Amino acid sequence: MPTIGVIGGDGVGPEVVREGLAVLADVAEREGFRYDLVPFDLGGERYLKTGEVLPDKVVDDLRRCDALFLGAVGHPGVAPGILEKGILLRLRFEFHQYVNLRPVRLYPGVETPIKGKGPEEIDMVVVRENNEDLYVGAGGFTRKGTAEEVAIQTSINTRAGVERCLRYAFDLARSRGRERPYRGLSEEERGRGLVGQVTLVAKTNVLTFAHDLWMRAFTETARDYPEIKSDYQHVDACCMRMVVSPERFDVIATTNMFGDIITDLGAVLQGGMGLAASGNLNPARTAPSMFEPVHGSAPDIAGKGIANPIAAILSVAMLLDHLELPRASERIRRAVARVLAAGAPKTPDLGGRANTADVGQAVRNAFE
Amino acid sequence: MPTIGVIGGDGVGPEVVREGLAVLADVAEREGFRYDLVPFDLGGERYLKTGEVLPDKVVDDLRRCDALFLGAVGHPGVAPGILEKGILLRLRFEFHQYVNLRPVRLYPGVETPIKGKGPEEIDMVVVRENNEDLYVGAGGFTRKGTAEEVAIQTSINTRAGVERCLRYAFDLARSRGRERPYRGLSEEERGRGLVGQVTLVAKTNVLTFAHDLWMRAFTETARDYPEIKSDYQHVDACCMRMVVSPERFDVIATTNMFGDIITDLGAVLQGGMGLAASGNLNPARTAPSMFEPVHGSAPDIAGKGIANPIAAILSVAMLLDHLELPRASERIRRAVARVLAAGAPKTPDLGGRANTADVGQAVRNAFE
Ligand SMILES: CC(C)[C@H](C(=O)O)[C@@H](O)C(=O)O
Ligand SMILES: CC(C)[C@H](C(=O)O)[C@@H](O)C(=O)O
Repeated sequence: MPTIGVIGGDGVGPEVVREGLAVLADVAEREGFRYDLVPFDLGGERYLKTGEVLPDKVVDDLRRCDALFLGAVGHPGVAPGILEKGILLRLRFEFHQYVNLRPVRLYPGVETPIKGKGPEEIDMVVVRENNEDLYVGAGGFTRKGTAEEVAIQTSINTRAGVERCLRYAFDLARSRGRERPYRGLSEEERGRGLVGQVTLVAKTNVLTFAHDLWMRAFTETARDYPEIKSDYQHVDACCMRMVVSPERFDVIATTNMFGDIITDLGAVLQGGMGLAASGNLNPARTAPSMFEPVHGSAPDIAGKGIANPIAAILSVAMLLDHLELPRASERIRRAVARVLAAGAPKTPDLGGRANTADVGQAVRNAFE
Repeated sequence: MPTIGVIGGDGVGPEVVREGLAVLADVAEREGFRYDLVPFDLGGERYLKTGEVLPDKVVDDLRRCDALFLGAVGHPGVAPGILEKGILLRLRFEFHQYVNLRPVRLYPGVETPIKGKGPEEIDMVVVRENNEDLYVGAGGFTRKGTAEEVAIQTSINTRAGVERCLRYAFDLARSRGRERPYRGLSEEERGRGLVGQVTLVAKTNVLTFAHDLWMRAFTETARDYPEIKSDYQHVDACCMRMVVSPERFDVIATTNMFGDIITDLGAVLQGGMGLAASGNLNPARTAPSMFEPVHGSAPDIAGKGIANPIAAILSVAMLLDHLELPRASERIRRAVARVLAAGAPKTPDLGGRANTADVGQAVRNAFE
């Protein structure tokens, strides 16, 4: 029986996690599987009360879980970085969750802010490297606080770390190629037997050390996937193309920092943060993977009960994929799709007046 | 009489520069000012022929100009980074062009790909720091080419370098506050006497060294501008907001790398790369400033005569602002506005069938 560690966290985190767990309970009953839940009290409130961010003992307990479900961390009363680095990034790194998987998919019934694009055009997945780059926390100051101050911040990239992430991306393109082949490919490319595509997004013309490594790893990894087209876009051009021609993307592989940026843009394309799910994956399963909505703690609406729970519910679906319960995860996705296609109930971020619980309930009612 | 150095450069660069220079000649005649042009042969062709990227002697000649007008550098036959770093970045750095000024303004008659937004909503300016950050070229490899390879790339940020850029942004918000006050401000903020806004875009919660310096410099600089609101957005959230609520921005101040990314997104908002102008400014005037369309060399359409010259023409307007010929620059902007409002002629990037020369001619015909 799998054990799922639950970190409600800050702001709207606990509100959306509640709905995610209710959906999980329902689908488990219908599918006939069981699980244990272990709640963890982490986040800004705990830090402000006790000074503790993430005690080592808690890391040990989290490590014993089979998967983690996280709401959000980030608290207006806590200086930037303390909770994000102390909880979120620490877990991503210590548990070797080296892939941050972020699907960008527009569900029918959801409006995208981009003209002339619909569910056919918006269906890509971002494989964001999740353990390296500027996120390693390397850097420092000299002459801090003076007019001569210098601050440096270093991006560290390893061949092994980059390559495992790229392999994940190519494997994903291969398996997507079975289900929805030819995304972003021209007639001519299809004719040549290509079935899918990985686009590397980097900035090789400026980051001539870090992204030279990425480019070489990409070119060499691609050789093992002759049926997958490998494409390259500079990060700036990628942002343009995501808005103007999202249909040209299938799988995107990118660095931690650029992945952070382009997946927020991806969330916009798919109808907003309220719908964007993610998984921090340890594909080797040497430690638990962690699933979380992309939206964060959203202090401006916290406590009002109006946060959109769909991103959290879709994160539960990703968690069930990871636990190899694909029937259960597909059932959740179909229920979500039905609610979104119906156009109601909707939380305020989607232009409706429903509250978090209404939407969670609607998804549970939509199970077939 | 000012001397303008002209670097046509690669790909579509010379094609759009030609139209920019024709507009310049026309406006000079109408406004009765004179100038000298000095052409410089730099770019991929020269490099491939002679192995020279940018000889020191040429730098000396460029330095003697009052302003530079650049088309684009970047050549499919040259490895990434060589021309970009060797020409573009070298000039930005050596000539202390520490501000990269990129207006994001939707002209009436131009379609933006974002639903429900028009010229009223899309009118911001990005002040991109242009001499530091990941662009300094600091970094290296160890065990290059092996499975144990590590590549690092370092962002260097100085208090003085950041502060001068922030001061430029606040001064700009102040002067914009005179012409188009209250952008992005609430009723309540207007009531409190605020007239403009600077939004710092960074990632303080992850880049806790580099962006801690930025945040402290920002807070301290803001004190000298009591009538300007200072706001902060994480770069990921900024990308969302630029698409969903562009009207909330007035002046954005940001790092070199993030500025590169968000200004391409800004170019999309304003109707595409064919319309995005920029200035690499040395506000202290210790060396020439350089004006260039944002689009780059666009090898896919080079030689076809269909590149949109508007970005280059608007870059000439920025150049004339810098030469303190504001009547001439306004005249160009009004002529461009007239052509865009008329909806024709349009190059293919805007959905038309006109060629580069047609559009350049139309702008010249539109001078009143
Ligand atoms: C909260 C922050 C540290 C985090 C990140 O930058 O990775 C968030 O923006 C995300 O994308 O998950
Ligand atoms: C060509 C490249 C080096 C350049 C940059 O990254 O600054 C370009 O993208 C730009 O924005 O001017």
